[in-house]
Amino acid sequence: MAAMVTPSLSTRDKLLRARAASLRLSQLSTANKNEILLLMAASIEANADCILEANRADLEASQPVGAMRDRLLLDAERIRLIAEGVRDVARLPDPTFETVSEWIRPNGLRIRKVRVPLGVVGIIYESRPNVTVDTVALTFKTGNSVVLRGGKEACHSNQRLVAILTQVPGVPEGAIELLESSNRESVRELIQARGLIDVVIPRGGPELISYVTQNASVPVIETGAGNCHIFVDESADLEMADRIVINAKTQRPAVCNAAEKLLVHEGIAEKYIPRIVKKLIDRGVEVRGDETTLRLADGFDVARAKDSDWGEEYLRLCIAIKVLAGVDEAIAHIARYSTKHSEAIITQDEEHARRFLRQVDSAAVYWNASTRFSDGGEFGFGAEMGVSTQKLHCRGPFALAELTSSKYEVIGEGHIRQ
Amino acid sequence: MAAMVTPSLSTRDKLLRARAASLRLSQLSTANKNEILLLMAASIEANADCILEANRADLEASQPVGAMRDRLLLDAERIRLIAEGVRDVARLPDPTFETVSEWIRPNGLRIRKVRVPLGVVGIIYESRPNVTVDTVALTFKTGNSVVLRGGKEACHSNQRLVAILTQVPGVPEGAIELLESSNRESVRELIQARGLIDVVIPRGGPELISYVTQNASVPVIETGAGNCHIFVDESADLEMADRIVINAKTQRPAVCNAAEKLLVHEGIAEKYIPRIVKKLIDRGVEVRGDETTLRLADGFDVARAKDSDWGEEYLRLCIAIKVLAGVDEAIAHIARYSTKHSEAIITQDEEHARRFLRQVDSAAVYWNASTRFSDGGEFGFGAEMGVSTQKLHCRGPFALAELTSSKYEVIGEGHIRQ
Repeated sequence: MAAMVTPSLSTRDKLLRARAASLRLSQLSTANKNEILLLMAASIEANADCILEANRADLEASQPVGAMRDRLLLDAERIRLIAEGVRDVARLPDPTFETVSEWIRPNGLRIRKVRVPLGVVGIIYESRPNVTVDTVALTFKTGNSVVLRGGKEACHSNQRLVAILTQVPGVPEGAIELLESSNRESVRELIQARGLIDVVIPRGGPELISYVTQNASVPVIETGAGNCHIFVDESADLEMADRIVINAKTQRPAVCNAAEKLLVHEGIAEKYIPRIVKKLIDRGVEVRGDETTLRLADGFDVARAKDSDWGEEYLRLCIAIKVLAGVDEAIAHIARYSTKHSEAIITQDEEHARRFLRQVDSAAVYWNASTRFSDGGEFGFGAEMGVSTQKLHCRGPFALAELTSSKYEVIGEGHIRQ
Repeated sequence: MAAMVTPSLSTRDKLLRARAASLRLSQLSTANKNEILLLMAASIEANADCILEANRADLEASQPVGAMRDRLLLDAERIRLIAEGVRDVARLPDPTFETVSEWIRPNGLRIRKVRVPLGVVGIIYESRPNVTVDTVALTFKTGNSVVLRGGKEACHSNQRLVAILTQVPGVPEGAIELLESSNRESVRELIQARGLIDVVIPRGGPELISYVTQNASVPVIETGAGNCHIFVDESADLEMADRIVINAKTQRPAVCNAAEKLLVHEGIAEKYIPRIVKKLIDRGVEVRGDETTLRLADGFDVARAKDSDWGEEYLRLCIAIKVLAGVDEAIAHIARYSTKHSEAIITQDEEHARRFLRQVDSAAVYWNASTRFSDGGEFGFGAEMGVSTQKLHCRGPFALAELTSSKYEVIGEGHIRQ
């Protein structure tokens, strides 16, 4: 199959096409959308070879190594999983045109709040080509046009995938638009396209998110930055604490819901610090600590934490440990340094747990569980678009329902305002 | 009472105080907040004379006339209504810490989504001093700190009102901060205070809203711009159409939910155009029209509508009329020109009504009712913060519930991710 992306279209033309498509998309029935999603999945599988060919071109062009290569790489099994993901989305319930609430005013006016598609959703992401397909599936299911701006490392893979998806019968022209990835100009146009774009979702590192929030004039859902804390209280079950700290730090250290900071109650620090430091170091974790931690972990290779450590998201096998006086001091420390993503308390004291759950101002707050559960799949949403760290529109893991807005349908019998 | 606003504090210091206050505010009980709101209302009434004195200083300084003067002016009755409005808010249910949904995952993890305060809410508004108190009441009720940036015409009134409100016993320091209104620098600082401000709500004219959306790096709820349409279908009850068109255009022409455009089905245009044009002109409305309207309204004083008329929000006794082929053409015209605020169809044809309600992409869509109902009070919310014309977070009239965010409280028994 030849790549069908038309490079001659300007960013603005693509945005106009997406806007025009959004009305048609919003009117597709759920059955029709699901049928098209299944065709998309089949077409991805049928075209696996030419997707792999495009992916090889990306790998040759950018010669990535390590984690970068892993993010960019596709193989037959990954393509199968991508197609399966689209089928999963087809099976999920369609939130659009659901009635959220409905009431009749004393004057007889009938008001119904219904979910509607957002309209045109812009996504800016980095090198993982599977994000291209995941995003198309979620936005299509919710009746939105999508404008994709992927990373340039994946440009051949993305062009091939979008060519395959847009050619599926029934996909309206403009429903899926892929922007030029060779420069930042397309990002700037996208995030300032007031009237054409209803929301932009940056999915990537802190630099991308900061650029988008600083420069966007369209609404943004901010995702991803995490500096997650675990507080081990005086009454904690220490075996449970070990299990949760090790899981949250080491199971997948490069993601935003991994633990980056460990706060320990001073009442158990003498017992707990040497024990957890040993376990962390045994698992290859670099450990930093405050003065008390250094003293209690004497004999272990622990570096002194700098002030900047408390606010840093390591995204690797590194953790900083601080000893403090109790749950209130933990809440205050978290209020000061956290990115409001996910934080956990390990305690057997229900009152402390309640206070922590209520007062810690983060998207997800855990009692006796790992921060790694902050994920759409783990929450039971069947999919995930990202983890919002802002307070507007949605907060925490989000998926289909959060790709909708609402409108009021109001029915009268000649009602006028007095 | 002396004005207690401390002019020595910088904008940044005020924002830091508001941020610090937000945690304390979020922990106040509903009973405690309601008690403080009643004290605020009483204090406003008790200090009516000194509020009027400050208001006279504003009137003398800016010497406004007409509608400008009416917006700025306070009198004993208006102060009584302002205080009554605060008591109304005290009586409304408190949405914070309500459980939105709650479920248990197959692995036993318990997840609860609860409403929480947004945190720090910034409001930028123009010359009406009652907005100062309305806003404080709504944000306080929902456990948010508020940072107010009112118009400079009302600066004495606002300073006095804020001094009265902040001195009410139980109001945490920093809960209500008033910014300098003499220049735009404070607006700029407010809308770029990432990490300190959770949302900014501009309430005012298109110029203000455009400045804020273009320059903000914090999340914004856009309010207000309206270019509302009424479509009179072929099967419309013309008496009903008259009543609704006259109400929507003339009852309060300077507001965002007033009708600005009238679309008429060609099948009834010959009969309806002369009739509605006469009624509008009789009520002092300036009428503009397309070619067909001009021909059918021959003998009446109707100006030719320019291209720019179709997108313009007049905010005064002026309307533009267009004749078109039917409901689909009306939907297409609205898609092109409306600001997605409020639109109405007048018809006896249920299928046309359903199509219009479903396909018109506006915050509120009416069938046989006036667009003037797009209002928090008329919707039954008991109050109104504004009318959102964006799709993120909230859309249409919004009040207390929309001044909250949510968080997930997750309870495990040592759960770790596999």
